[in-house]
Amino acid sequence: MNAKPYLCAVIQASFSDNREENWRQLESLLEQAASQGAGLALLPELHNGHYFCQHESNREFERAEAVPGPTTEWLSRLADRLDLVIIGSVFERRAAGIYHNTAVVLDNDGTLAGQYRKMHIPDDPGYYEKFYFTPGDNPFRPVTTRLGKVGVMVCWDQWFPEAARLMALAGADILAFPTAIGWDPEDTEDEKERQQDSWMTVQRSHAIANGIPLLAANRTGHEPDPAGNNAGIQFWGGSFICGPQGEIGHQAGADETGCFLAEIDPVHNESVRRSWPFFRDRRIDAYAGLTRRWNDSTSHDMETDND
Amino acid sequence: MNAKPYLCAVIQASFSDNREENWRQLESLLEQAASQGAGLALLPELHNGHYFCQHESNREFERAEAVPGPTTEWLSRLADRLDLVIIGSVFERRAAGIYHNTAVVLDNDGTLAGQYRKMHIPDDPGYYEKFYFTPGDNPFRPVTTRLGKVGVMVCWDQWFPEAARLMALAGADILAFPTAIGWDPEDTEDEKERQQDSWMTVQRSHAIANGIPLLAANRTGHEPDPAGNNAGIQFWGGSFICGPQGEIGHQAGADETGCFLAEIDPVHNESVRRSWPFFRDRRIDAYAGLTRRWNDSTSHDMETDND
Repeated sequence: MNAKPYLCAVIQASFSDNREENWRQLESLLEQAASQGAGLALLPELHNGHYFCQHESNREFERAEAVPGPTTEWLSRLADRLDLVIIGSVFERRAAGIYHNTAVVLDNDGTLAGQYRKMHIPDDPGYYEKFYFTPGDNPFRPVTTRLGKVGVMVCWDQWFPEAARLMALAGADILAFPTAIGWDPEDTEDEKERQQDSWMTVQRSHAIANGIPLLAANRTGHEPDPAGNNAGIQFWGGSFICGPQGEIGHQAGADETGCFLAEIDPVHNESVRRSWPFFRDRRIDAYAGLTRRWNDSTSHDMETDND
Repeated sequence: MNAKPYLCAVIQASFSDNREENWRQLESLLEQAASQGAGLALLPELHNGHYFCQHESNREFERAEAVPGPTTEWLSRLADRLDLVIIGSVFERRAAGIYHNTAVVLDNDGTLAGQYRKMHIPDDPGYYEKFYFTPGDNPFRPVTTRLGKVGVMVCWDQWFPEAARLMALAGADILAFPTAIGWDPEDTEDEKERQQDSWMTVQRSHAIANGIPLLAANRTGHEPDPAGNNAGIQFWGGSFICGPQGEIGHQAGADETGCFLAEIDPVHNESVRRSWPFFRDRRIDAYAGLTRRWNDSTSHDMETDND
């Protein structure tokens, strides 16, 4: 277990639909992160091209690749050369007919340390992910790296307190979310602000409730709707790193491209868990209802119901 | 089910250790709330006197009373007279040796609609609650009132995403937290700010993650440590009402006494759940680990582990 403070980086960028071009940009940003002393870097979700889930098209499956495969091999070389733990994102072809939205973790010697297949799959206008991605069947298990255990999940997972809690209970030292989220350009400014603020708040809350640092890397820039039906997505950037009290270490602006660093201190993290001992007081005898879809008035969570 | 918008009030005050004095003050504040059009009002935790859990003393058990009992009878008369759903807080004597920190809900005709016994009990310097309060054995079930189902919990419960989720899944229309939380006057200003911000953030996050409005009523003012060992507690006020996107309807200052109102709109609440369909996508097949204390590497959440 690494007990020394280290620097984490979140990488934020806009992407073209040309993989080589995106790789060159990301390579340069990862080099910057390493030269600034980062030990771990997180990339945005599906960083090889446009966020193709804005429409449903069979042609888009041609983007999928194996894990390990071209993207993990590219990241592996970088991780080894830069002495950097790298968390990337792959549209994974696991088998004909089984495709996943997968986060991959390369240890700082280039080893593929582990992967995570997105568990919660959205399906909303502009985010037609249920068409492309089979829900993950991994349990929520962190990936062990030289810098500790990384609880990596993907985007929509970030709205579910259950996911963050399970990763923390499985021993994660940090949580990390590759992300692709943005505004409908036709929404009001008020609604845009509420949405981005909700996104920050719910993730900072995972950090607080679990006494754990958290990284979120989002893309930026506008991408048109390939089907031409609506105004596309304006990705809202805002990538951030927060500590175990939800305190912001660094947050990027909506339109910035760059690598953004903050320090993680494992000793401080444990001291926060001692002062705010939520894990001590969880009522695990009363949480069975969390594995149900809806708890109607006839189902009971506990043996003893004194109402 | 009430589908019309209505006004909620959170009551914030400092308390003496004289019950009659506190009741007169609260009566006046509840009258104000009703005269301003509130349909529901939430009081702070243990509003009959000082927050006695700053020390451990057998004498303090003399404060405990039955439910129903003097406090619920007083609140019942007020609820009926003011046509107000009132959520109050009682140090409950359930039996010799079994005492609870209990929230009580009076419907607007004065009926004791239900109660909730605090499930998560803190025990930290200044908050020695495990000495006084037996953990609740209620399931997380909302109380049905004329204005809808109230998911009432108490203070420390507010830090546990599981509790908020279970109340929401049991059909709560709003969440409500009587609270007594404050600063150690000897902490730094930075630490105080982080703590209060964490408190807001984690509760706003429950609203967001569950698409549900939330009320928190806290006390204010300084109360000395009865044992004289430390600087006492400076209760931080900051009572608030937020909507289902975590948007603040009203927040009180640190030192204000008063009733603070905001509107709840059940139709808007359901529309937010349609736009942000977290309940649709919960992975109930993968959440079994939430009923465990810690998930070590040999326990498995799911049948299929593809790592």
